[in-house]
Amino acid sequence: MAEEKYVIGIDFGTLSARGVLVKVRDGAIVSSEVKEYPHGVMDKRLPDGTELGPDWALQHPQDYLDCISEIFPTLMKDAGVTAENIIGVGSDFTTCSILPTKADGTPLCFLPQYRETPHAYAKLWKHHAAQREANELNRIAAERGENFLSNYGGKISSEWMIPKIWQILNEAPEIFNAAERIMECGDWVVFQLTGEEKRSSCQMGYKAIWQKETGYPPNDFFRALDPRLEHVADEKLSRTAYPLGTRAGTITKNSAKWTGLNPGTPVAVSCGDAHAAVPGAGITRPDVMLMVIGTSGCDMMVSRQRCRIPGICGICEDGILPGYFGYEAGQSCIGDHFQWFVENMVSTEYRAAAKEKNMSVYRYFDDLATQIRPGESGLLALDWWNGNRSVLVNADLTGLILGMTLRTKPEEIYKALAEAVAFGKRKIIDTFQANGAGISELYATGGISEKSPFVMQTLADVIGKTIKVSAVDNATCMGAAVMGAVAAGVEKGGYGGIPDAASAMSGGVRAVYVPNAGSHVIYERLYQEYCTLHDYFGIRNNVMERLKKMESAET
Amino acid sequence: MAEEKYVIGIDFGTLSARGVLVKVRDGAIVSSEVKEYPHGVMDKRLPDGTELGPDWALQHPQDYLDCISEIFPTLMKDAGVTAENIIGVGSDFTTCSILPTKADGTPLCFLPQYRETPHAYAKLWKHHAAQREANELNRIAAERGENFLSNYGGKISSEWMIPKIWQILNEAPEIFNAAERIMECGDWVVFQLTGEEKRSSCQMGYKAIWQKETGYPPNDFFRALDPRLEHVADEKLSRTAYPLGTRAGTITKNSAKWTGLNPGTPVAVSCGDAHAAVPGAGITRPDVMLMVIGTSGCDMMVSRQRCRIPGICGICEDGILPGYFGYEAGQSCIGDHFQWFVENMVSTEYRAAAKEKNMSVYRYFDDLATQIRPGESGLLALDWWNGNRSVLVNADLTGLILGMTLRTKPEEIYKALAEAVAFGKRKIIDTFQANGAGISELYATGGISEKSPFVMQTLADVIGKTIKVSAVDNATCMGAAVMGAVAAGVEKGGYGGIPDAASAMSGGVRAVYVPNAGSHVIYERLYQEYCTLHDYFGIRNNVMERLKKMESAET
Repeated sequence: MAEEKYVIGIDFGTLSARGVLVKVRDGAIVSSEVKEYPHGVMDKRLPDGTELGPDWALQHPQDYLDCISEIFPTLMKDAGVTAENIIGVGSDFTTCSILPTKADGTPLCFLPQYRETPHAYAKLWKHHAAQREANELNRIAAERGENFLSNYGGKISSEWMIPKIWQILNEAPEIFNAAERIMECGDWVVFQLTGEEKRSSCQMGYKAIWQKETGYPPNDFFRALDPRLEHVADEKLSRTAYPLGTRAGTITKNSAKWTGLNPGTPVAVSCGDAHAAVPGAGITRPDVMLMVIGTSGCDMMVSRQRCRIPGICGICEDGILPGYFGYEAGQSCIGDHFQWFVENMVSTEYRAAAKEKNMSVYRYFDDLATQIRPGESGLLALDWWNGNRSVLVNADLTGLILGMTLRTKPEEIYKALAEAVAFGKRKIIDTFQANGAGISELYATGGISEKSPFVMQTLADVIGKTIKVSAVDNATCMGAAVMGAVAAGVEKGGYGGIPDAASAMSGGVRAVYVPNAGSHVIYERLYQEYCTLHDYFGIRNNVMERLKKMESAET
Repeated sequence: MAEEKYVIGIDFGTLSARGVLVKVRDGAIVSSEVKEYPHGVMDKRLPDGTELGPDWALQHPQDYLDCISEIFPTLMKDAGVTAENIIGVGSDFTTCSILPTKADGTPLCFLPQYRETPHAYAKLWKHHAAQREANELNRIAAERGENFLSNYGGKISSEWMIPKIWQILNEAPEIFNAAERIMECGDWVVFQLTGEEKRSSCQMGYKAIWQKETGYPPNDFFRALDPRLEHVADEKLSRTAYPLGTRAGTITKNSAKWTGLNPGTPVAVSCGDAHAAVPGAGITRPDVMLMVIGTSGCDMMVSRQRCRIPGICGICEDGILPGYFGYEAGQSCIGDHFQWFVENMVSTEYRAAAKEKNMSVYRYFDDLATQIRPGESGLLALDWWNGNRSVLVNADLTGLILGMTLRTKPEEIYKALAEAVAFGKRKIIDTFQANGAGISELYATGGISEKSPFVMQTLADVIGKTIKVSAVDNATCMGAAVMGAVAAGVEKGGYGGIPDAASAMSGGVRAVYVPNAGSHVIYERLYQEYCTLHDYFGIRNNVMERLKKMESAET
């Protein structure tokens, strides 16, 4: 029997990076390691104290490298595996997270002259300060009748590449000019490992308005946004896209030093984090929706047809699995709602009670909320604390709770937040199905799907479909490992394609949530109320946007 | 110089009774005493554990007597004043709070056979479980074209006498049948002191659909509600109404024992608590609105004209000051919002910070909220945690907050609640003025007006008018004392009428809140948004009522 071969998959999340070292043969996880970003999410100020505006969210790119140089050697040490048995590395990254760099990949924020300039840092996916640019882009694209809009649900999000770049140009033209490249952070990490700038078709397709058939929008569209943007695609992006599973290059002599890997080890092109989760969960068939349920939520599915789905984040040919149209939709805020609640709204008494029961505050509230029957609290919420990604595509929408009385308890609010998330998910699913993208099965993965049976049961009860939770511990990470095994190729002991690798390395179900029929009937009525408010505040009364404008007004 | 004469005024509030002993000559408060009701507000269960439904709020009438027998002797002892120098007693009471009794005044809940029957107890003003009856009454009255509706803003509130009585009939006909009298609790207290059932025209006018000119609605209206109600006015109420300031009777031999007063001491007829505050604050002129700002809010004004104001609680000739039409409007929930927030939503960190600063949690949040500029939080709330009294007159409306993001802090929610209260107040004021009842000056009294400069400044900024806070420590209590001095009459050393007594005994201003012009401009925009939501949720989308029905559904 040949010596066992391994791959490393690394997932760059919002707050931390997580790596796994797995057997290529069967995907067994041999070691696993997490490291938080030293600078975390910078949403109030830079390390030097420079203040950031509302809706900003930055990261420090050095954190990504520091995570690699701690995680990779630890994974190998813990597993007792040496570098020569690692046949490939794959990575995924939150997206769209962008970084302006020099041509050699040096981030502008590493340069002393830009250290105090917020726009020189990495803009995290949840940086929402480019809404003005997104609105303007959408207006101009609609006026010009640009076809590309239909691939993005009719609207480009403020979270994506072009609005974020345009914000840099508007607010810090010196950074825009100094940026010889503007990259997805995921592509930048691969650049650091391989010395090669090879941009992933996944991120280009979903976040940079690029399509396999038609490329970017024409230069005159960019000129219509701002004459200085006319040549942005040629000057700062790239027109060459590499499909998922492609070998971007290999570990260089230099990166070997700080990764502990051998030079020449194959490295896959980067992948969007939610996109990686599909093969990571072992899903290789069309019409199976995977809900990634974590801090925020992504809903991924591949299909044989290209359907026009309003409010979808994106459709991209080969964007998730080769040979299919890959759909991405999402909710900007899932776990974040609960974290906000727990950090801001939990009184001493509840904390003490949770401690008494030896439970985390989250699980204690799950427990209390489970005991409240649907409809009992009289509350209804809109899940827009971080805007609405699908199907309204508007980062300036905000949260709402109604139905409070003097008897309203905190656990009822907690439950209403979970129900709101489920109603939002149901809205996405209904929109897919109403527009031709039938869903035959629902899978879930991500932190909340593993930790909160309460939230999962609420989702099943509201949606009215059975939900299977992937058995893979961290499907995103496993997806990155799958990419690494494909980048290695058959000749090195890996696989010839993503479906082969995914089938061999992942799959299985850890838990199944079956809807409770009685609860579903009640939730059906609440969902109708949710839809009315969804359309009222999402479309007819723009009060949330007006309030948000007042919020940032310097009066 | 003649020996100094004194009166006692006692105010029966929601949670406690407060008495003052004052000099008749100048209203100087010589002693003051508060006692909480031993049973408080029973909104979950009776003392024996019998469970109450949602929106119930009961009290135990023995508590009222216990408060008197503790407060009166203590007042005299603390002041060093003996019973022979007390020339009169006045009282006010929350209204409409009702009690079913035998003909001799014995509350049904004192009888062993009814001790476990919730309907045998006193229904506090904020008992909101008769909304179904109120809706039905309003429907029938509108169908019949009953003129009386225009005196009550077009709608009778579920808080008032007839819906509450009807609820007893519907849910506990044995209590309805056993009740030989159904009284305002304030009239009942006077009955206990004097042995005489003398009902106050103030409470009859504002809460029992009685008017000086026309009396109650005709019997056939009551029959249209329910045949068993046809003779309710003759059988359980009274058609004789005594104006404010009237001597109801005097302390009896029996009540002398438990009050410590001398038999023969004059006792005034009862007065509504908010109504008492007008003379109590020294207001004797028309077109001056007094806002009583406490747990809930009442807005009182007298005028020379009878105006038809939609959503007003009531207009009653001589109901506040003799010779004028008295207007009452109100907000069901002011301080209660803040109490709900503080009891449910305040984390350990904030409590610790308040303690560190040696401040109450309320004042600490006032402090934090003051530092947030108008519009800065992006939040907007509807002040309906306890329904809406004016101008929508719907106890089934509930609270709403919108604009939350992941950055929303608790102090921003606290500020939004204060702003919502101010928007609700502005709505009342605008409705008065738009319907011919011009307001020349705004006065305030009540706990919050004394304790929270933050809330008062917010009110001034939102309303855009200067607010003067009455110098009288407890205007309601002082109003009761004024009534006592009038009941005593000139011959005993008191006064010949309410205006004389009020002018001599009260008046003055403790604080003046002038609107900040910059804040007012911003609040003008927020108020327009509030009005849109007010009409949407108050009139066009009845989601709050539908949710409330689901809440109480036994599914």
